[in-house]
Parts: sequence; C-alpha cells; structure tokens
Amino acid sequence: MSDPKAMEAAVRTYVASYNSSDLDGILSIFDQNATVEDPVGTPLKRGHEELRAFFGQGVEMGAKLTLDGPIRCAADCAAFPFHVTLHWEGKAQRIDVIDVFRFGPDNKVVEMRAFFGPDNMSAE
Amino acid sequence: MSDPKAMEAAVRTYVASYNSSDLDGILSIFDQNATVEDPVGTPLKRGHEELRAFFGQGVEMGAKLTLDGPIRCAADCAAFPFHVTLHWEGKAQRIDVIDVFRFGPDNKVVEMRAFFGPDNMSAE
Repeated sequence: MSDPKAMEAAVRTYVASYNSSDLDGILSIFDQNATVEDPVGTPLKRGHEELRAFFGQGVEMGAKLTLDGPIRCAADCAAFPFHVTLHWEGKAQRIDVIDVFRFGPDNKVVEMRAFFGPDNMSAE
Repeated sequence: MSDPKAMEAAVRTYVASYNSSDLDGILSIFDQNATVEDPVGTPLKRGHEELRAFFGQGVEMGAKLTLDGPIRCAADCAAFPFHVTLHWEGKAQRIDVIDVFRFGPDNKVVEMRAFFGPDNMSAE
C-alpha cells in the first residue's frame, strides 16, 4: 500500500518543478524504468533517458501547470485535474488534462497516463 | 477508435441519471460484462447484475453528481473530475472523485475506475 502523503508530495513536486523549469525535479519523482503515456493512446516512453527527452520538450515550450481540484489518492494511484499553459507554434495554448500516476513500493512513479484530447485544447 | 462525442454523451447520461435517481439510466451506458472498480483498490464488480446492486446503493443514499471541469477524452477513454454528495450514516457527505471510463467499440463502458480516498471525503 502506497502512502497518500508521499503520493501527494510527488504530484506537488511535479507541478512545482514544471513551474520552475526544473527538468531534474520532474524526473526525480519517476522510477528509473517508469513508463509515460501522454496522451493516452500514444506510444509509451520508458526510462529516464526517454522521459528526459519528452519532458524537456515541455519545459522548452514553457509549460506551466495549475491544479484544478484536489488530488485523489486510491490504493497505489494518484489522479489529479489540472491545466497546462504553453507556447506552441507561436501561440499561447491551454490544455485541460487529468493525470493518473501509479506508484511503486518506494513511492516513485512507475506509470503515468495523461488524459486529454483535441476538445481540451484552446487558445489562452 | 472511440467517438469523443459518444463518450461525452455517456458521461453526461451517467451524471444526469444519478441526479434523477434513474438506475436503469446509469446501467444503460455500461456493457453487459463491464467491470467497475470503485474506488480503485477494491474488488471488481462485473456485469449488470452486480452493477445494479452497486449503483442501487448509491441511488438509495441520494447520491448527486456535479462535474468539476471538462471531460477529458483520449483514445478509448474518458476521464472527468466531479464531486458527489450523499447521505451516509445520517450525515451529508461530499466526496471528490475522478472517474476513468474505458469504452468498447459500440461506445459502451467496458471498464470504470473511480479514484478517491479518505482525504477526499468531507462533511457537506
């Protein structure tokens, strides 16, 4: 059984790290062999090297995250609603997202899935 | 590939059916062999007979649902944040939840997972 306090802390580290463009901070919450499916339906990224390349793109686009409600912890998972603002193709964009993190026994994220689609994107 | 409009319609039917205490309406969005894990970490309910018993309890507690942000559709899934109010042990309670519905090819829900924990429950 994972620890809700540790899972919540990982989510807050993830948000704060994006907001200070701290790529190492983002990676710090993930297990070395973690998988990321962002958005759901796209090929998995696996392991810190692929995650560094993926989240590095987000940091370069100036992605900033804002939680839009409480973090929901259940068993070994944390789910949370947020929106991200970023610069993409010369425009300020907003995307409404729900992330689900699944944690391993050492409270590192072993699986991340991001839920959003075209209807969740809008001009800022 | 599932249809985002059909998935969104199913979510809105689910919410509206709860809010009119319409158990058949709730069940109408689910595949005959759907599984429900509510909350995540508890034993699965499977098939309409078990789902009827489970959702019937919610209807009896007067559960009312309010969406707290946009529905996020990705691939064959819809995720959405909401809160539910209900009467439990003689008290009005609020629970903040994120549901993830996964849909089959006929746009019926084949898997539902509800994310919430003790920290998401409060007196109304």
